[in-house]
Amino acid sequence: MTTYNFNPGPSPLPKEVLDHVQKNMFNFEQSGMGLMELSHRSALYEQVHNQTISDLKDILRVPDDFSILLLQGGASLQFSMIALNFLGDDQKAAYVMTGSWSEKAKKEADFYGETYVLATTKENQYKSIPDVPLQDIQNNTAYLHFTSNNTIFGTQIRSFPDADVPVIVDMSSDILSKPVDWNTVDLAYAGAQKNAGMSGVTVVIIRNSLLEKASDKVSPSLSYKQHAKSNSLYNTPPTAAIYMTGLVCDWIKQNGAIEGMTERASHKAGLLYDEIDGSDGFYTGHAETEARSFMNVTFNLPTEELEKKFLAQAKEKGFVGLNGHRSVGGCRASIYNAVPVSHVEALVSFMKAFRSDNQ
Amino acid sequence: MTTYNFNPGPSPLPKEVLDHVQKNMFNFEQSGMGLMELSHRSALYEQVHNQTISDLKDILRVPDDFSILLLQGGASLQFSMIALNFLGDDQKAAYVMTGSWSEKAKKEADFYGETYVLATTKENQYKSIPDVPLQDIQNNTAYLHFTSNNTIFGTQIRSFPDADVPVIVDMSSDILSKPVDWNTVDLAYAGAQKNAGMSGVTVVIIRNSLLEKASDKVSPSLSYKQHAKSNSLYNTPPTAAIYMTGLVCDWIKQNGAIEGMTERASHKAGLLYDEIDGSDGFYTGHAETEARSFMNVTFNLPTEELEKKFLAQAKEKGFVGLNGHRSVGGCRASIYNAVPVSHVEALVSFMKAFRSDNQ
Repeated sequence: MTTYNFNPGPSPLPKEVLDHVQKNMFNFEQSGMGLMELSHRSALYEQVHNQTISDLKDILRVPDDFSILLLQGGASLQFSMIALNFLGDDQKAAYVMTGSWSEKAKKEADFYGETYVLATTKENQYKSIPDVPLQDIQNNTAYLHFTSNNTIFGTQIRSFPDADVPVIVDMSSDILSKPVDWNTVDLAYAGAQKNAGMSGVTVVIIRNSLLEKASDKVSPSLSYKQHAKSNSLYNTPPTAAIYMTGLVCDWIKQNGAIEGMTERASHKAGLLYDEIDGSDGFYTGHAETEARSFMNVTFNLPTEELEKKFLAQAKEKGFVGLNGHRSVGGCRASIYNAVPVSHVEALVSFMKAFRSDNQ
Repeated sequence: MTTYNFNPGPSPLPKEVLDHVQKNMFNFEQSGMGLMELSHRSALYEQVHNQTISDLKDILRVPDDFSILLLQGGASLQFSMIALNFLGDDQKAAYVMTGSWSEKAKKEADFYGETYVLATTKENQYKSIPDVPLQDIQNNTAYLHFTSNNTIFGTQIRSFPDADVPVIVDMSSDILSKPVDWNTVDLAYAGAQKNAGMSGVTVVIIRNSLLEKASDKVSPSLSYKQHAKSNSLYNTPPTAAIYMTGLVCDWIKQNGAIEGMTERASHKAGLLYDEIDGSDGFYTGHAETEARSFMNVTFNLPTEELEKKFLAQAKEKGFVGLNGHRSVGGCRASIYNAVPVSHVEALVSFMKAFRSDNQ
């Protein structure tokens, strides 16, 4: 039976990437050693490390005045590192709240400085993206933070606000799925396990003029300056996870680069939203139409009982990961870059059949 | 040509582990998904996670009043987390200095509180392990920190001091190579990439009574309490690295458990030290005899020219990673658990032949 993996992260990797890893990781470049057995100071590993950084730069068209770091600890550690590095004693940080991840980002920052909510759609169950009132940004605001895609609620920010303060974006769940306008972003970060590889490495892309403002009172392992100075080799990096990110970059380049990924995402999301919108109210999307995510499609059925039945039958047919997040319930299909179009088509067919049997 | 991998870390993994990974990781438990494609909230992954913790507990005979955490960021992040969690404003932390890693540990802690050097052998080029003057531990000392094995200088602490303050030990380079007397240790930590798997996961073993003392002023991603409460699933863990650690535990169990590893380490180290000691002064160990490490054997040749020649010829014959650390030079053979006895025998044969040609 085919397994259709719609996990919210960790999530599918391209089949070509897994095949390559299986064939090549264990005798890397005919060295007689596995990739993970190489010293991180060896020329063989350094080539992987630097090529991954260079590929990320190419695919995302990152300008030359940015640095790309490959760190550990997930996006969650970034929540703290951002405040530790950029939120001074006499400053505040502005947070745009679009879901659980925004809340967690702010909560971690609260330990290290003063923050405030600039805009939120919490009262609306995070079904939409708030307008960002740039005029309300307070004096001495060190940065403006937001989450570009909200895995749990299935919403996504279409265009980023062009603020006068440094803009920091958690792109964990939609990095590498669409171009970034770097004029509007000063620091972007993303855990790799959705669109950029496997868990264990976090991509951080930072404008050098912001990097220079990072605090000198932060210890080396938590300091962006230190990691940038050491090209992310201050201490032993997660070499296998970085290798995997590099292979995912290769795959993206071979599949239409960033525009190819955007087209693919838009096509897959369209298939699902068309079924939802054409279901005569049987399926209802959680997110408001204009805020819909191209990465996580969240929806409900008429009753909780039908949702349970839907999820149980889907599971029997090989669909994995369709349960909504435990905090909100319902159903969710995560359709990151590596999810094949054919798997989304299979899901739509199943949704149609289930609807026809139960509507 | 056989590759003899003596890398200081990342370093060799058991062949059986790599074979198993190659056969099983990419369709894990017949799920149709790779291990790294599983949600960290799935039953399949949770089994791996909990079994790894349970195996570490068994092998190291960790008492029930300890918690085992699987974190990210390497030992370097622990250097900071220890101070952030345990070094209060009105307290000090005592550091025993036995090499570069002790220095780095103290340097990171200095950012977050007051520390002092309780003992050091720096003036002796870290060739020996200092006596630890327990009577000199100052009032209000939050903890005593030391490094159990020093990869760069090739020294190892044979028995741990039994201090009245919490004792914290960096075991990155000798964990799982010998039993631990948990009466003398309150927190042990180790990056996995030497004896416990691949880079990207850090094992932390902490006495619950110490855990309770951890600061509540630390953000969740840096809080031992939070990670313990969440069973190291506060955020997405490095699932593939944890899987690898679990497989290394299996391999240890199948190879004589902890006593098997101790015997193996002692035998391999003995082969090398015997050649050094029997070389009539051609090879000289860096470490003083009683401080010699069973994990990293550091040695010099009569001249730098001969060292260069030795390293060049060794490289030609397939020996990898024998250069001493860039900060001290000379030669170093890292002989962690997974290095086969036959590889050490091959190195000794080469050393004998080289000596006979050049003495």
